[in-house]
Amino acid sequence: MAYKSDIEIARAANKKPIQEVGDKLGIPGEHLLPYGHDKAKVSQAYIDSVQKNKNGKLILVTAINPTPAGEGKTTTTVGLGDGLNAIGKKAMVCIREASLGPNFGMKGGAAGGGYAQVVPMEDMNLHFTGDFHAITSAHSLLSAMIDNHIYWGNELDIDIRRVVWRRVVDMNDRALRQITASLGGVANGFPNESGFDITVASEVMAILCLAKNLKDLEERLGAMIVAYRRDRSPVFCRDIEAQGAMTVLLKDAMQPNLVQTLENNPAFVHGGPFANIAHGCNSVTATTTALKIAEFVVTEAGFGADLGAEKFMNIKCRKAGLAPDCVVLVATVRAMKMNGGVAKGDLGAENVDAVKEGCANLGRHIANLKSFGVPVVVAINHFVNDTDAEVQAVKDYVKAQGSEAILSRHWELGSEGSADLARRVAEVAESGESNFKPIYPDEMPLFQKIETIAKNIYHADAVVADSKIRDQLKQWEEAGYGNLPICMAKTQYSFTTDPSRRGAPTGHSVPIREVRLSAGAGFVVVVCGEIMTMPGLPRTPAAQSIRLNDGGEIEGLF
Amino acid sequence: MAYKSDIEIARAANKKPIQEVGDKLGIPGEHLLPYGHDKAKVSQAYIDSVQKNKNGKLILVTAINPTPAGEGKTTTTVGLGDGLNAIGKKAMVCIREASLGPNFGMKGGAAGGGYAQVVPMEDMNLHFTGDFHAITSAHSLLSAMIDNHIYWGNELDIDIRRVVWRRVVDMNDRALRQITASLGGVANGFPNESGFDITVASEVMAILCLAKNLKDLEERLGAMIVAYRRDRSPVFCRDIEAQGAMTVLLKDAMQPNLVQTLENNPAFVHGGPFANIAHGCNSVTATTTALKIAEFVVTEAGFGADLGAEKFMNIKCRKAGLAPDCVVLVATVRAMKMNGGVAKGDLGAENVDAVKEGCANLGRHIANLKSFGVPVVVAINHFVNDTDAEVQAVKDYVKAQGSEAILSRHWELGSEGSADLARRVAEVAESGESNFKPIYPDEMPLFQKIETIAKNIYHADAVVADSKIRDQLKQWEEAGYGNLPICMAKTQYSFTTDPSRRGAPTGHSVPIREVRLSAGAGFVVVVCGEIMTMPGLPRTPAAQSIRLNDGGEIEGLF
Repeated sequence: MAYKSDIEIARAANKKPIQEVGDKLGIPGEHLLPYGHDKAKVSQAYIDSVQKNKNGKLILVTAINPTPAGEGKTTTTVGLGDGLNAIGKKAMVCIREASLGPNFGMKGGAAGGGYAQVVPMEDMNLHFTGDFHAITSAHSLLSAMIDNHIYWGNELDIDIRRVVWRRVVDMNDRALRQITASLGGVANGFPNESGFDITVASEVMAILCLAKNLKDLEERLGAMIVAYRRDRSPVFCRDIEAQGAMTVLLKDAMQPNLVQTLENNPAFVHGGPFANIAHGCNSVTATTTALKIAEFVVTEAGFGADLGAEKFMNIKCRKAGLAPDCVVLVATVRAMKMNGGVAKGDLGAENVDAVKEGCANLGRHIANLKSFGVPVVVAINHFVNDTDAEVQAVKDYVKAQGSEAILSRHWELGSEGSADLARRVAEVAESGESNFKPIYPDEMPLFQKIETIAKNIYHADAVVADSKIRDQLKQWEEAGYGNLPICMAKTQYSFTTDPSRRGAPTGHSVPIREVRLSAGAGFVVVVCGEIMTMPGLPRTPAAQSIRLNDGGEIEGLF
Repeated sequence: MAYKSDIEIARAANKKPIQEVGDKLGIPGEHLLPYGHDKAKVSQAYIDSVQKNKNGKLILVTAINPTPAGEGKTTTTVGLGDGLNAIGKKAMVCIREASLGPNFGMKGGAAGGGYAQVVPMEDMNLHFTGDFHAITSAHSLLSAMIDNHIYWGNELDIDIRRVVWRRVVDMNDRALRQITASLGGVANGFPNESGFDITVASEVMAILCLAKNLKDLEERLGAMIVAYRRDRSPVFCRDIEAQGAMTVLLKDAMQPNLVQTLENNPAFVHGGPFANIAHGCNSVTATTTALKIAEFVVTEAGFGADLGAEKFMNIKCRKAGLAPDCVVLVATVRAMKMNGGVAKGDLGAENVDAVKEGCANLGRHIANLKSFGVPVVVAINHFVNDTDAEVQAVKDYVKAQGSEAILSRHWELGSEGSADLARRVAEVAESGESNFKPIYPDEMPLFQKIETIAKNIYHADAVVADSKIRDQLKQWEEAGYGNLPICMAKTQYSFTTDPSRRGAPTGHSVPIREVRLSAGAGFVVVVCGEIMTMPGLPRTPAAQSIRLNDGGEIEGLF
């Protein structure tokens, strides 16, 4: 049997005008700001007006450690949303926006897959509603204002060697990773070292996704540390007086974007911070608004549960006062096999033993998630070559852990394939059995917070950090940042800091390479290993084959 | 009497839903792609469908050499458009989009002024419909692909010292004018010199504004020269295979943006190339589409008539097959006085002699414009302190030149104030007296084209260029670029290359500093004097006072 490609399915979608999608949620026409006929932003006035409503149920979709086999987290998020609607619940999906740059390197970037997608797919992988461009502009304005301040006399006494505010562009441009700027003489300023990250790595992105409203946004932007003086005292964005203009640039970008699934159910696609140096979740505004207008909100977090769900719980939920009612942990038979030692080329053959072996990774994630006080349902995202015996092996394993694994065939069948999963998730979410709390309190010292994550989530023996790092953490505590949560930046492929160690390793330690303070976003980034904040393009970038065909359709992007 | 500020008037505008504005032009709803409720893009399918229509009349609004007194070219363009509608003509305005970056330096950026404005003013000065962001992205993609090509082996044998494709950002960031990139070792590429211009200076912007359709856009993008080899042979964008993906990034940006005047008349605001190193006109797509759906199209060109109108005629009209039916030359009593030697601080006092003295500048522009075979109407853009005697002095002078000057009070009164101007312009445009042709033929050698402009428009005695520049022009002729028009980059404040020489100077020569080939846009840029393609911010940037007030309104931007 031949399956259609994601883009073929997306193009054949029977999209409804976005106003009709808004109608389902009761959003009046004047409060939907359209971008074309199939995208809209929800007005701030409307968001304000629903604050008195009761919250719906919050469902987090997360996954085992990703493998090259693909786990289908977004696909499952979308499929579950459609499934909940299909069984009569008023449900919404909340996912992240795609970054533009990486699409020109590797093909990809779909929002879901198969019959569980959000559309319009092309727009979502290109400029969409311009949110990321607004973030790039706001970030760039601050960059320009910092160098401009130095140029005109440097009243703030910034040490030009210690400007920590880098620049951003939403493009994979490795040549900009490290630059010297302000060359060319007197008219151009004071030569200094700088560099560009990709836009999703900007602290502005993290802030946009955590801010409660425009006022909160402006305050957080102002609190960002952009440089240090020779005496090491910090210079804030508010010292440069950039936060007001940045907020003006971001005012539309703060409004959630409404689009639809292939089954015409509403979805917010909003925000997209990096999942390593930031928290990797869609915006608080989108999630909290969705909870006010839908009975069920299905959202996801970046990478596997060790990073994504941990940050969702300890950062996003803590800061936004959210509490998940159910966590769906996505696993695939293929990924279990890879965790069990099978190479990607050999995934086609049935291998029940490898599946069983690989389930250790799944098991640890289940236990970790339960430690937050939330009930876990495992979704086996079905691939058409999975055998019944392999699927049964996963189900049996999960049952032995005290949870339930449900096969879901949304990729192939849409909501018809995810109805079972939806029924079980709705049941669990409505049961009231969730008793969520973050795994560390605000007042715990920073280093101890890191140890708590390393030991309880990664199951490491120890955290290794030299005195320079420990001293830095202490200084931040003295400066009043001790109550911040931790944002771990480590490989997503393993519980350890070594990407090759699959399964559920033990006996490892977590070496800290560097710590960074995101004072505006409100977390301390702990970098374990090499973290790339500006990707490069491959030898043959996808861009070389991206074009409009004679029918005006985009080719090569997917 | 107290006058309201532009922003107060703009905010009090009684805007109609953009669909109603489109209805006036007969554009069906499905062909208007909304961006909010007050902006829309016109679909390519609709543009294709009107190609069989007869063209309306084309009116160019240009001006004397600008002075610090302000001449009000856009204000007059908008006022004339409203005036034509008020006297029963179906008229449209076509103007340029504003660049984002400069708004954070100096206040400003309104689209017209007083009661002759295009709205929504705030959006037009911020992200608008994202066109400039799309141009920045397309430009940045090519930048990344060039360095990526070099990184992966440099099969095209690019001389990394001769990469002429710079980078762009839509921000005034002087620190990026000159940089070294690809520092930091093996993983980041080969160190090289680079730099950023502001987005409006990108050749991609010029191409977007000259391309007839998406196919033409892709071909022109492919024809851009991005670098040279050691043997000096050019490397094109198509060699890097970036033009297809760039076209995909630009496909929405190619569609004209429909907005409205304060009097709810339709306006296209689309494109905005630099007026020095590029041709400074709104897009060909907007102008040609407007001509198919309106009886009168009022458009403008950058700077004074010596640069803006000359390029409009010799570049835009030539390439797009357009022919203006009437030219409106905007003058103000204040600017005449400044051309007559009055300092800005003394403009308040009546000074008829200075007005008469300054009219020489106006007179030369009238004669120049007539040399293109087009009839000229002078619009005296009324300022409330102008005296009757001063106005009469301008009228008398213009009459002596065989043209007519009409006082227009659109700034104060809207279309009521511009009805006289509109009646006369309509009469002239409909008279059929225009017999337009560019002032030099395609086949004239490049240097002779430069001389033609310098002598016939600037009234210079000679063009001064060293042999290196003359040889370069000859090489381009041999390479097949000899048929291109010339794009002069010189100061806008004088007919000469010295900004301090007002009036109608003679006896000067035009020294050429540099020539550049914009092979995709299709013109040869002749740089006379210092041309800044990346502005800086002032000591106290406007950004420091830009913010949202408690009512959610933007303060400090205007």
